[in-house]
Amino acid sequence: MTTPLADSALDTLFLTARTHNRFLDRAVPEALLRQAWDLARMGPTAVNCQPMRVVFVQGSEAKERLKPALAAGNLDKTMAAPVTAIVALDMEFHEKLPTLFPHADARSWYVGNDALIAETAMRNATLQGAYLILALRSLGLDCGPMSGFDPAAVDAAFFAGTPVKSNFLINIGYGDAAALYPRGPRLDFDDACRIL
Amino acid sequence: MTTPLADSALDTLFLTARTHNRFLDRAVPEALLRQAWDLARMGPTAVNCQPMRVVFVQGSEAKERLKPALAAGNLDKTMAAPVTAIVALDMEFHEKLPTLFPHADARSWYVGNDALIAETAMRNATLQGAYLILALRSLGLDCGPMSGFDPAAVDAAFFAGTPVKSNFLINIGYGDAAALYPRGPRLDFDDACRIL
Repeated sequence: MTTPLADSALDTLFLTARTHNRFLDRAVPEALLRQAWDLARMGPTAVNCQPMRVVFVQGSEAKERLKPALAAGNLDKTMAAPVTAIVALDMEFHEKLPTLFPHADARSWYVGNDALIAETAMRNATLQGAYLILALRSLGLDCGPMSGFDPAAVDAAFFAGTPVKSNFLINIGYGDAAALYPRGPRLDFDDACRIL
Repeated sequence: MTTPLADSALDTLFLTARTHNRFLDRAVPEALLRQAWDLARMGPTAVNCQPMRVVFVQGSEAKERLKPALAAGNLDKTMAAPVTAIVALDMEFHEKLPTLFPHADARSWYVGNDALIAETAMRNATLQGAYLILALRSLGLDCGPMSGFDPAAVDAAFFAGTPVKSNFLINIGYGDAAALYPRGPRLDFDDACRIL
């Protein structure tokens, strides 16, 4: 049987966790990024396909490479964040299926079906991106996810000549609560859900 | 400061949690579905857009309506699951932005740009779907997410005449560990990530 989470854990993951735009001057240990991966990778994906790829941009040379691709509103906060993760999709994820899903010839379901590849990569790498956000929070880190950037520019700067495409970005660090805005409203269950 | 999660919570969310195909004969209280929503809805989405909509299919009439849309390999387990969530996207999510993101005229960024609407709905509703999986696990429930179904048939049966489109399904209940297969392998950090 699984153990439900304590209230403090629900706070860390969901209830008091916030999207952060400014981070404290405190380094993010590489060991925590690796530990977050080792958690997030266990989350479910279709036919265990695991299409997410991640570049953790930390050094100043790599940050400068990212800079021209950022939307104006995301520029300063991203350049100042301790780490920025580029959450990306491997459009050749199916080449790993003989290892990741050895029970069937799952690779053959995708070869030549670019629409299915694109949809499967997007859905499952995005699920994995959410697992990564919550894994980072689980370890006491804070996140600032963003879609405001030029994906073609990021792909040219980081994934040229590869089948990998950018999906979204996550600034990572220890959030500065003094810089938070009031929290946006959320939809109630009855505004978004039905039970039939 | 946030409190990192205890090891038992990391197990419940990621490390020992499994995708379940068979569930115990134990009802899922509606209160837990509502509580899972109240957790998952707090996760981050772009411009707070919250495009996920969910139908929790529980009653036998609704399950029969879902049945013809299921892939053969998902049929029996889904009909037997206590609850099946249809995780869907609202393609008119931007109509709620004046309430959800009142700081700017964010609605105008989407109106007339169907490609941006579709991409934003898919990315953010999928992030929310992952938050929902982990919220359900947080409360001690087990999940069996699936992409194997006919989306057009589900949309016709549950979302006809609406701007809502199905994304993926989640069987929900208390998992029967006796029916688990061995766990599939996962990619190592160095197979999927780089630090720059």
